[in-house]
Amino acid sequence: MSFNPRYISELKDFLSFPTVSSDSTKKKDIQRCAQWLATHLQKTGLKKVKIFQTRLHPLVYAEYTVSPELPTILFYGHYDVQPAIPLQKWKLEPFSPVVKGDYIYGRGTADDKGQLFIHIKAIEEVLKKTGKLPVNVKCLFEGEEEIGSPNLPDFIRRNKEYLKCDAAVVSDTKMLSMGQPAITYSLRGTLNMEITITGKNKELHSGSYGGMVYSPLQVLCEVVSKLYTEKSRISIPGFYADVENLTINEKKYMAKVGPSDERMLKEAGTDRNWGEEGYSNFEKITVRPAISITTIKGGYQGEGFKNVIPASASIKLNVRLVPNQNPLKIEKLLMNYFTEMVPRGFELKFNTASKAKPVLLSIKSPYIKAASESYKEVFGKSPVFLRSGGTIPVVNMFKDFLKAPTILMGFGLPSDNIHAPNENFHLPTFFKGIQTSISFMKNVSAIKKAENSSSPETLLQEIFNTTN
Amino acid sequence: MSFNPRYISELKDFLSFPTVSSDSTKKKDIQRCAQWLATHLQKTGLKKVKIFQTRLHPLVYAEYTVSPELPTILFYGHYDVQPAIPLQKWKLEPFSPVVKGDYIYGRGTADDKGQLFIHIKAIEEVLKKTGKLPVNVKCLFEGEEEIGSPNLPDFIRRNKEYLKCDAAVVSDTKMLSMGQPAITYSLRGTLNMEITITGKNKELHSGSYGGMVYSPLQVLCEVVSKLYTEKSRISIPGFYADVENLTINEKKYMAKVGPSDERMLKEAGTDRNWGEEGYSNFEKITVRPAISITTIKGGYQGEGFKNVIPASASIKLNVRLVPNQNPLKIEKLLMNYFTEMVPRGFELKFNTASKAKPVLLSIKSPYIKAASESYKEVFGKSPVFLRSGGTIPVVNMFKDFLKAPTILMGFGLPSDNIHAPNENFHLPTFFKGIQTSISFMKNVSAIKKAENSSSPETLLQEIFNTTN
Repeated sequence: MSFNPRYISELKDFLSFPTVSSDSTKKKDIQRCAQWLATHLQKTGLKKVKIFQTRLHPLVYAEYTVSPELPTILFYGHYDVQPAIPLQKWKLEPFSPVVKGDYIYGRGTADDKGQLFIHIKAIEEVLKKTGKLPVNVKCLFEGEEEIGSPNLPDFIRRNKEYLKCDAAVVSDTKMLSMGQPAITYSLRGTLNMEITITGKNKELHSGSYGGMVYSPLQVLCEVVSKLYTEKSRISIPGFYADVENLTINEKKYMAKVGPSDERMLKEAGTDRNWGEEGYSNFEKITVRPAISITTIKGGYQGEGFKNVIPASASIKLNVRLVPNQNPLKIEKLLMNYFTEMVPRGFELKFNTASKAKPVLLSIKSPYIKAASESYKEVFGKSPVFLRSGGTIPVVNMFKDFLKAPTILMGFGLPSDNIHAPNENFHLPTFFKGIQTSISFMKNVSAIKKAENSSSPETLLQEIFNTTN
Repeated sequence: MSFNPRYISELKDFLSFPTVSSDSTKKKDIQRCAQWLATHLQKTGLKKVKIFQTRLHPLVYAEYTVSPELPTILFYGHYDVQPAIPLQKWKLEPFSPVVKGDYIYGRGTADDKGQLFIHIKAIEEVLKKTGKLPVNVKCLFEGEEEIGSPNLPDFIRRNKEYLKCDAAVVSDTKMLSMGQPAITYSLRGTLNMEITITGKNKELHSGSYGGMVYSPLQVLCEVVSKLYTEKSRISIPGFYADVENLTINEKKYMAKVGPSDERMLKEAGTDRNWGEEGYSNFEKITVRPAISITTIKGGYQGEGFKNVIPASASIKLNVRLVPNQNPLKIEKLLMNYFTEMVPRGFELKFNTASKAKPVLLSIKSPYIKAASESYKEVFGKSPVFLRSGGTIPVVNMFKDFLKAPTILMGFGLPSDNIHAPNENFHLPTFFKGIQTSISFMKNVSAIKKAENSSSPETLLQEIFNTTN
């Protein structure tokens, strides 16, 4: 296998742009990165390279057409990243990537610049070796994934003829472990909600008023403390109404191929079991919904103490949804819950973002078969089929607007620390990923386009019946 | 009454120093303010003016000795202030004071630069008119009151001969209303505690782990939600054990002279009654203890959303204590409570500050009588005797180290917005305060020093028996 050091040096350049999409001070860095990426795609030999501006951060597009008779693959990835905080927990500058042993460290190495780069390098290698690609390829790289892709649905809807493809490939998920590839067939949906509780009182001195004022911070704690029951189930009425139960066969399959409870705890760095009774840890994070408190903010945030009862307090929640929960319905349930739970005399303000439906993909399509064979060729092992706890909203958009199935070919590892300090990516897997992508393009070229006309929504149950 | 505009212009200069003692970036401003104050005391005609450096912010001292036969009054005040946040809620620059109508606006106008300045101007007027003071006077102005006077106890203990006095005067409390003076005879104690809850897990992606991880933010909410019972009583075992009950006579007196429930709610800007059942609002904030949540901080604090389950969360509490609660004992109860309530798998870190005992002062001393008569001369009304919900730690130090009673002659008004945005001070009351201080010095000069030898700890009950 070629272990081209130039690829690493190019990846480092790509990683050096602090493309934190949630940080409004990074707008120019994101523009510069999009420009770098477009130039890189051009040099690689892709055609019709274009930067599409949106209301916020741009999309980078490129394509390579061989023949209308051949299938078209759309490679999707995102070049924006999560904030690199808390900075003091990073052992390196998050945007000055370094290689240590087999790993490259830096924000975005695994999520998702490194994974996206795999396909660019695969295209480059094939073009260099054979002068053309075996299939038609389109690339779509966005800069707003980490903030919920606010402008992507509209872009895809308005450009569906342009983006038309037979299957989309998204590499933004994990393998089961080093050496054991995995194809993800289910994703949780997501819903972010910020809730601000404001009392009618102004800020009050805690000496002069402490004991007679119901503080918004206290109200917040009281309401949040009731979000989960003593059995760690979400207490919001109706919250589980649309949650699909696993079939026994799929449950068995998950128990066989999925990570054990112990391994999941080890990955999380804790020895404290928690969560809904009656489910394995892997099930808790894939087939069961969750509400995580990601932020609480209220009162004096500076150093030392300020003896003031604040006038308002806020909380940010990240809800993860499973098939067939609907983010709009859950949003309403949450708003009703807080409205009902917060006592008289307080005002509530809701701010929701990043709404995405959960995803359940067919694993019977010929494209999944092509991906599966490619993994086997390169890694020497067939992939396992996994559900993931994460969310990739674009998968729904490809399904809804392009009527195309998505193949989630992830090259991440559980040790990548995505969204956390010291994010990293395993370089031998990066290079194997390039070979897998090359092999995938070759395998796809053998698919007769008609094969794709079968329903992409085959019931999973059948698969697990036979797999088991 | 003289309404000298020079005094206001000098007060404005004094207020312009951003002497926020909790802000480490303001160290130089505090030094410059101490220098300004020392120079001002010198110009006023006080002697032995000196700046005492401490480990943090300096004390300013001055004195004026007439005769060892006459009583000595120690005027105490503080020239440091609370942070001026949130800045966007201020209608003016907090350190660029402005006069509007009868009020001067700016941080520190009432708490405590304006009140402290009253006595300096009183001394100036008497010296100008008569060439000498009627009593011996010492001034002690500190720069660390708003952070719990960390260096003051040691300073007073080491300088008790130097600071020796017959009574201390502290003007850092409120009148009952405009035109109705008040002498405060009881203060709540205080205890600030920061509690940090850290899980063993690192920061975790809420997609990958949401549903199987017990988050420190959730634990924090659950524990804090149980701090108060449903009847709004603090649920910590033993918390009320040392709380003294009011006598029926004092309860009646407080109901007669103290602010009504409605007025207290109006002052707080809310119509929502809250707090311990069976007590008036005035009682809740003076004779009953309280725990106020002043800060909660956990998770991503930037704009937008970051889908991460944080590894730790923290809370800051301000506890107000009443006679005879002991801050050290309450500190221990709180630490035990949190240690017991926080589930296995989490580490707790405690950081306490600003410990001060509650205060109950005798109202039978001749100095109280002198103060009372001065108020009557200037305001045309005898003062009422009030308990206050606030804390002035120095009162305990004067009692413990100097064996001197303190007279709390406050000139603040309930509308002053101390510790909050748009702090202000009523200028006609400021000028009446100067006359009251002048009258007080004159009245004190008639006290035979021997009278002070009576116990300053006379039981309040007797007073209320006769007052009623």
